[in-house]
Amino acid sequence: MFIDVHGHVSAPSELYAYKAGLLAHRGAHGRGGAGISDDRLRAALHEPNPSFGGESHLAHLAAAGIDLQLISPRPYQAMHSESPAFLVDWFTAETNDVIHRVCQLEPGQFRGVAGLPQSMETDPATWTRELRRCVQELGFVGAMLNPDPYEGTRQPPGLGDRFWYPVWEALCELDVPVLIHSAGCRAPARESYSLHFIQEETLAVIGLLQSAVFTDFPDLKIVVSHGGGAVPYQRGRFAPGALRKGQRFEDNLRKLWYDTCLYTRDSIELLLGAVGVDRCLFGTEKPGTGSMRDPETGRWIDDIHLLINDIEWLDDKQRTALFETNARELFRL
Amino acid sequence: MFIDVHGHVSAPSELYAYKAGLLAHRGAHGRGGAGISDDRLRAALHEPNPSFGGESHLAHLAAAGIDLQLISPRPYQAMHSESPAFLVDWFTAETNDVIHRVCQLEPGQFRGVAGLPQSMETDPATWTRELRRCVQELGFVGAMLNPDPYEGTRQPPGLGDRFWYPVWEALCELDVPVLIHSAGCRAPARESYSLHFIQEETLAVIGLLQSAVFTDFPDLKIVVSHGGGAVPYQRGRFAPGALRKGQRFEDNLRKLWYDTCLYTRDSIELLLGAVGVDRCLFGTEKPGTGSMRDPETGRWIDDIHLLINDIEWLDDKQRTALFETNARELFRL
Amino acid sequence: MFIDVHGHVSAPSELYAYKAGLLAHRGAHGRGGAGISDDRLRAALHEPNPSFGGESHLAHLAAAGIDLQLISPRPYQAMHSESPAFLVDWFTAETNDVIHRVCQLEPGQFRGVAGLPQSMETDPATWTRELRRCVQELGFVGAMLNPDPYEGTRQPPGLGDRFWYPVWEALCELDVPVLIHSAGCRAPARESYSLHFIQEETLAVIGLLQSAVFTDFPDLKIVVSHGGGAVPYQRGRFAPGALRKGQRFEDNLRKLWYDTCLYTRDSIELLLGAVGVDRCLFGTEKPGTGSMRDPETGRWIDDIHLLINDIEWLDDKQRTALFETNARELFRL
Amino acid sequence: MFIDVHGHVSAPSELYAYKAGLLAHRGAHGRGGAGISDDRLRAALHEPNPSFGGESHLAHLAAAGIDLQLISPRPYQAMHSESPAFLVDWFTAETNDVIHRVCQLEPGQFRGVAGLPQSMETDPATWTRELRRCVQELGFVGAMLNPDPYEGTRQPPGLGDRFWYPVWEALCELDVPVLIHSAGCRAPARESYSLHFIQEETLAVIGLLQSAVFTDFPDLKIVVSHGGGAVPYQRGRFAPGALRKGQRFEDNLRKLWYDTCLYTRDSIELLLGAVGVDRCLFGTEKPGTGSMRDPETGRWIDDIHLLINDIEWLDDKQRTALFETNARELFRL
Amino acid sequence: MFIDVHGHVSAPSELYAYKAGLLAHRGAHGRGGAGISDDRLRAALHEPNPSFGGESHLAHLAAAGIDLQLISPRPYQAMHSESPAFLVDWFTAETNDVIHRVCQLEPGQFRGVAGLPQSMETDPATWTRELRRCVQELGFVGAMLNPDPYEGTRQPPGLGDRFWYPVWEALCELDVPVLIHSAGCRAPARESYSLHFIQEETLAVIGLLQSAVFTDFPDLKIVVSHGGGAVPYQRGRFAPGALRKGQRFEDNLRKLWYDTCLYTRDSIELLLGAVGVDRCLFGTEKPGTGSMRDPETGRWIDDIHLLINDIEWLDDKQRTALFETNARELFRL
Amino acid sequence: MFIDVHGHVSAPSELYAYKAGLLAHRGAHGRGGAGISDDRLRAALHEPNPSFGGESHLAHLAAAGIDLQLISPRPYQAMHSESPAFLVDWFTAETNDVIHRVCQLEPGQFRGVAGLPQSMETDPATWTRELRRCVQELGFVGAMLNPDPYEGTRQPPGLGDRFWYPVWEALCELDVPVLIHSAGCRAPARESYSLHFIQEETLAVIGLLQSAVFTDFPDLKIVVSHGGGAVPYQRGRFAPGALRKGQRFEDNLRKLWYDTCLYTRDSIELLLGAVGVDRCLFGTEKPGTGSMRDPETGRWIDDIHLLINDIEWLDDKQRTALFETNARELFRL
Repeated sequence: MFIDVHGHVSAPSELYAYKAGLLAHRGAHGRGGAGISDDRLRAALHEPNPSFGGESHLAHLAAAGIDLQLISPRPYQAMHSESPAFLVDWFTAETNDVIHRVCQLEPGQFRGVAGLPQSMETDPATWTRELRRCVQELGFVGAMLNPDPYEGTRQPPGLGDRFWYPVWEALCELDVPVLIHSAGCRAPARESYSLHFIQEETLAVIGLLQSAVFTDFPDLKIVVSHGGGAVPYQRGRFAPGALRKGQRFEDNLRKLWYDTCLYTRDSIELLLGAVGVDRCLFGTEKPGTGSMRDPETGRWIDDIHLLINDIEWLDDKQRTALFETNARELFRL
Repeated sequence: MFIDVHGHVSAPSELYAYKAGLLAHRGAHGRGGAGISDDRLRAALHEPNPSFGGESHLAHLAAAGIDLQLISPRPYQAMHSESPAFLVDWFTAETNDVIHRVCQLEPGQFRGVAGLPQSMETDPATWTRELRRCVQELGFVGAMLNPDPYEGTRQPPGLGDRFWYPVWEALCELDVPVLIHSAGCRAPARESYSLHFIQEETLAVIGLLQSAVFTDFPDLKIVVSHGGGAVPYQRGRFAPGALRKGQRFEDNLRKLWYDTCLYTRDSIELLLGAVGVDRCLFGTEKPGTGSMRDPETGRWIDDIHLLINDIEWLDDKQRTALFETNARELFRL
Repeated sequence: MFIDVHGHVSAPSELYAYKAGLLAHRGAHGRGGAGISDDRLRAALHEPNPSFGGESHLAHLAAAGIDLQLISPRPYQAMHSESPAFLVDWFTAETNDVIHRVCQLEPGQFRGVAGLPQSMETDPATWTRELRRCVQELGFVGAMLNPDPYEGTRQPPGLGDRFWYPVWEALCELDVPVLIHSAGCRAPARESYSLHFIQEETLAVIGLLQSAVFTDFPDLKIVVSHGGGAVPYQRGRFAPGALRKGQRFEDNLRKLWYDTCLYTRDSIELLLGAVGVDRCLFGTEKPGTGSMRDPETGRWIDDIHLLINDIEWLDDKQRTALFETNARELFRL
Repeated sequence: MFIDVHGHVSAPSELYAYKAGLLAHRGAHGRGGAGISDDRLRAALHEPNPSFGGESHLAHLAAAGIDLQLISPRPYQAMHSESPAFLVDWFTAETNDVIHRVCQLEPGQFRGVAGLPQSMETDPATWTRELRRCVQELGFVGAMLNPDPYEGTRQPPGLGDRFWYPVWEALCELDVPVLIHSAGCRAPARESYSLHFIQEETLAVIGLLQSAVFTDFPDLKIVVSHGGGAVPYQRGRFAPGALRKGQRFEDNLRKLWYDTCLYTRDSIELLLGAVGVDRCLFGTEKPGTGSMRDPETGRWIDDIHLLINDIEWLDDKQRTALFETNARELFRL
Repeated sequence: MFIDVHGHVSAPSELYAYKAGLLAHRGAHGRGGAGISDDRLRAALHEPNPSFGGESHLAHLAAAGIDLQLISPRPYQAMHSESPAFLVDWFTAETNDVIHRVCQLEPGQFRGVAGLPQSMETDPATWTRELRRCVQELGFVGAMLNPDPYEGTRQPPGLGDRFWYPVWEALCELDVPVLIHSAGCRAPARESYSLHFIQEETLAVIGLLQSAVFTDFPDLKIVVSHGGGAVPYQRGRFAPGALRKGQRFEDNLRKLWYDTCLYTRDSIELLLGAVGVDRCLFGTEKPGTGSMRDPETGRWIDDIHLLINDIEWLDDKQRTALFETNARELFRL
Repeated sequence: MFIDVHGHVSAPSELYAYKAGLLAHRGAHGRGGAGISDDRLRAALHEPNPSFGGESHLAHLAAAGIDLQLISPRPYQAMHSESPAFLVDWFTAETNDVIHRVCQLEPGQFRGVAGLPQSMETDPATWTRELRRCVQELGFVGAMLNPDPYEGTRQPPGLGDRFWYPVWEALCELDVPVLIHSAGCRAPARESYSLHFIQEETLAVIGLLQSAVFTDFPDLKIVVSHGGGAVPYQRGRFAPGALRKGQRFEDNLRKLWYDTCLYTRDSIELLLGAVGVDRCLFGTEKPGTGSMRDPETGRWIDDIHLLINDIEWLDDKQRTALFETNARELFRL
């Protein structure tokens, strides 16, 4: 059985038209709603989509044998940097509601991972209301956290800063994992949102490991997307600093979990070797950025299960851990 | 025959989902397109819409006897203040293309009024490329100008400033009128976009009349939306200043045109008396803000033709001028 | 009997030379005072003034039959945006003292309306000390409030914001009305102070009516200057929003009072029709902006009593209410 | 004969009321004028003034035996940091006109020194128009330059910067001296305008002497007010730097002139010794800051001629140079 | 023979005391110089250094068998973000002079790589004067470029921006390679300078490959430090974007060179596989960050030659290319 | 016996290389230390130094007969405006430690005056920890205070502001004097750090004397460096303001102490006359800015004892007070 911990919801255009409306009237029309019918929701899952290489979301999952996918909001649509903050609240809740309805429409296929209304105009403690609603009322199994709610326009506090503690507290109290995954990226940053994901993950790993977070929250479960940014590849650079503190950096790395959302086999191998198979979770972000066929191999670029299958040194137990049991234990599925 | 000079396009959710996507990826996915089928376009015109009091766009026009409506982009969706500027270009062009397709789908019912890509990151001279495309290639009959492309976040140059001259030049060269109509309004402004319309129209009228614009562009044809903001009602306040220059302010007011988009009869009467019937054009913004039935009268609030019909002192010639011939002459329809 | 609720004090040049001195030494010379003799004060009331069309303040009142005028500081001189705040305190108190002395010099002719030291560097609660002094010690009958103490340079909190509650509290406690009237207007705003009055009144009316102010302060008495800015003329635009809340916007408008300081008869008629005669107060701002003779009619532009007299449908009781009793009741004169 | 090179005009309150009006309407009332009668002008010179210790301007001059005084605008009223720039133009010209009228009203007693419209929103080259008008049309004998037109709110270019070259060029072309004298001082500066004078003079002397100004403008004549700020007293500090360049700092100091506007004898003696009697000019700033009687001595504090008389080592020729001939030569009186 | 393309100069404390002096007097003491004797220079190379694990610079090279090392300034000392710009000029030149003297003191052991005076207050064209001096007069074989001269305080133009073209032009004209290597990193950035290196290299690779730089400068030779940041590990993420343009991202990666300065074998292997052995250069940054012994292996962490030796699949020709001939050809050594 | 209250420590280059390192790694390398051996410390005192005119620190003292010198950090190196604040803490403590070691290495020759870690990012109360350490643990006899920790980049609170009260409290509690002495000066200020000293001392004297500081801290002992900036020379300017408060400014001046660090005899004489010999302390800042021989006299410019010796009217008791006993009493030596 394949459990994919890194999927994003596929929603119909009404959800994003709703967002566009919020950004246009800035609240003057009231909260309203996206007004999406079940038919339109189903169509968004079942109909072929040019953005997904001409296949539907469910067809992608079926072809890859993904039995269960954890789905969160499309990160780049999160609009965390928009103002006033209540717009972020409204759109986040509307999106989480769509995720919940999708989970109900396709029972067994999906579980929800909550987006948080991360406006920097509000205190992180207020973000956790939506987290509680999603976990306690809607049955979500985790949350997604954007380490840069400014979306590239200013420097936020690093993840090691006490600013984030209200979120860690709520996660520990609810006992659910959180997926580190940034959102949009606006000028004056030099990178697209997609490269920003990598930069933010690098900062997240180092920011967390050089802080007191895991001392203060020993039960906190953090999953870093896209194989941990640059860190596994660059981990040697952090070895001397750790040694000076009497630690080994590779041990520190194992305080976190990482998904396998990397599109080359050698990178996945490096990740598995660097942090250990037991700290890795199968994740594909499928369908999404990688949903294009490589003309040389004929494979979908995001067919990460094939890349893992190609790794010869993994034994069956390790494969099962990677594809299923690590996720099952961490998310208590 | 009724010609309504102030309508906005009704487009399907795909157009605004396209906009939401641009604001999310900030160009990283390329320009792409909204991907709207003719069926979805037609549905947006023919299907009942809760935002329009449960009627369709075309049903509204039919009920009010509007034979021809000039349609421009929905102003509050214009996103002029978004960055980088090419996003504004892309969305404006996509919207104008939708207007063009709507005009073709319902021949005789609509004529296009062009939105302009008014990013303050670009020179106004560059905005006129889209104006030329719409008029010369798509057959549009006029343009809409937002006097506050900052959308409430900063003070733009007043309409009397030379900043705007490239736009006036292009309008004169193409010999088409322009409708003054602001767009969104963001914090820190204290008003909603809808009240911002009124404030900006007030500033526009006074800014233009106290400038050299009509000396420098004697053939420029400017229509101010919503009955000219506060100015006709407050016009006495400007009389002394004009007298000091040997002018009468009421004469100056007649350098502009005004639409009748006011929802009370006394206001329309005041407007007609203040600026003259020959300077007024029938405009409804229908369906839109006023598309709600007044429970006391049973009328749609935006049934402006009924308010005009109620004005007893208008003779037939004036009514015809107001409902049809003023627009026909100004827009050369 | 005519009671004019909207007059401003005419003071000799020493008062404004005092202000110029404060702005020059920024407090280094201490508070000092304007040093105005009674003779100079009387001259400012009795002597012909080129700014007033060559007539004196008292001659204007006599000619218009104004028996009692409520006088406040000249708003455009208020210097609320100057720094440090104590300069605003000093000049406001000096001006209120001049008003008080004028009231004493011409007994029966004038009553004081207090200016407030509205520096945004200080808390509104501190502004009310001067309000109390004027009402409790100097016998003033009301206050004037500037909704934009930044004078066009930044966006202040809207009048519905809790920021203003200390002022509402003091007004209710003292049981005196307040006249909404903005002051100066500096760059980067696009409008002169005179047009700024209108813009701010529009914002004030809508800001107040869309807030909880009258729920929280049911006894608050607010008079909006210059006929309520754009709102009576544009009131239809706000009808749908009110209907959605189960209200009628025209009822809401009647939570406020309005003065008749409009210089065209049709505007005054529209105002009376829109808000009701019982919500209107005779106000002229005389002598001031409108103190110029219209060469066509030979009338002073600010001869608002003549405009009202021209309105045929007003009956005697309504005229008396408008000219006298509404003011008498509201201000308890 | 005593020639005092450092006096400021005493004008009636109308001039400053005019300034207050400009700052209130920010140009909306047009340029207008202060409207000062000759009687009011004369009164400002002849009437006892509490700001001047209860004596009139002319009485002060008579008592001190000042036969001729060069008068410039009151510096702290200059409002150079106000916006828009045309307000500075208007007020500067109005003040210079008052100076001109005063010179004509009291022939032989006064000669004019021009204020410049030093708005930092305009180019220094434009300031020189008023300089030319004053010298060529009104017969003024010099100008006053404020090295800090920002009046303490920002750092201006130092006097050695090329920014100031258009002023130096015009001064050389017109062949008139310039008096360095700053104007107002606003927060966030820590000093009053009066202490700001001293700080700016210190910066001016060092800024000029460390620059190429006197190489590029060998004929430029600059007089530094108030005895050169701190520099003569602190001159030893600048000796090593000059020596490293093969210069003596005391020689450099003699590129400038200094007035004697210091209120203690030892300070004047130090100045004379440091820069040489031939580089000093009798200046009193009388009546002004120092127009108060010292209770111990009974003298006016600004009776600088008495302090000079007390200096025993000055011979007659030196006294004459100081009191008269240095000024006569420099200003060509 | 081993050629190490990534070394930094070891200079005595006088060089950095010189820098501290510049930052203290901000130029008031003039340019001066560090005043370093040959003895002190030699000591900095030969004496054991606690920052280098208790060994000397030369001992490190000898132990690793590095026959020739290319040395550039210590990047984190570059002070590019300091002001005024001439301080950056002075310190950069002083440092390059020290590098030149070190090359002369130890003939055959070192070749110089020039630091550039990259103040954002100056135009990049002015930076190339120092580049020309180093290459043409001092015999340097390349340059080092900091893609973030703001050192973390603001967003600089991306490396694909035309801003950088004057540098590319000079490099092509001189026909020398450039090493991309950022410098310091100040608040508000969330990362240390060392992690900033990685983030900036990631941005550099993607910024360059998505731009027209290699079309406009086909002969430009750019070496990215530290194995290219995150990109080789994350390269799959960029495959779909390249495919949409008809390119393969791995081909694009081969437009650049990369050094092997990674401290784990798997990372070096991944790099070699991703970009090809012919695009990799032996680089150690030795002695430096990695000059600490790993207590498990007993090896110096920066003994990169040992890591490479451990890679079994490299044949002799490839090893020679990596250790020597690639560098020899690229730098024409 | 000569006691010099105004000396600064001469430290080897390692101290400033340590500072340069802190500014380069911004704390990433940890606090570390300058690693200065006793030999290097001694060399910095005993070896001829080109910055000191080719003599050593101790040779200067010997030649001038200075038996005891109070030494503080080199002010221009203080880096108070650098960020983050802990860098200022570290460097200040390192410098004070060096001062302490120098005092121990040359017993009887030196006593310490503490630098304070005056980052504006921290509260002044936190600065006093280092003050207490120096006085209570290291035996320092006073402290040095920089009135402008922003080093010319912004306006700090004036010395009369309550902001500084925690420092005054600690000084009174420890019963040690404080020397007012500013540090560096960065753009946008127009002056070098050396001229900034004078400007800041002027502001300090006036700021203190116009405040409540000496009412609130009657036992506070403040010494102003460099003869009090401009104030003794310009003191007449402040006489009228004091008289208006019933005070004499010269009495007020005597609330402070002043050192004689002025390089011309007339200036020292003026100082002694203005404030009284009992308020003056022998101070030379030797070796330093003035350590250059005057080619005319052959004297060192900073041979202030010779200037004092040249003052004929001083009697022996006054000389002893000036050279020794005033300092001995104030600092309790």
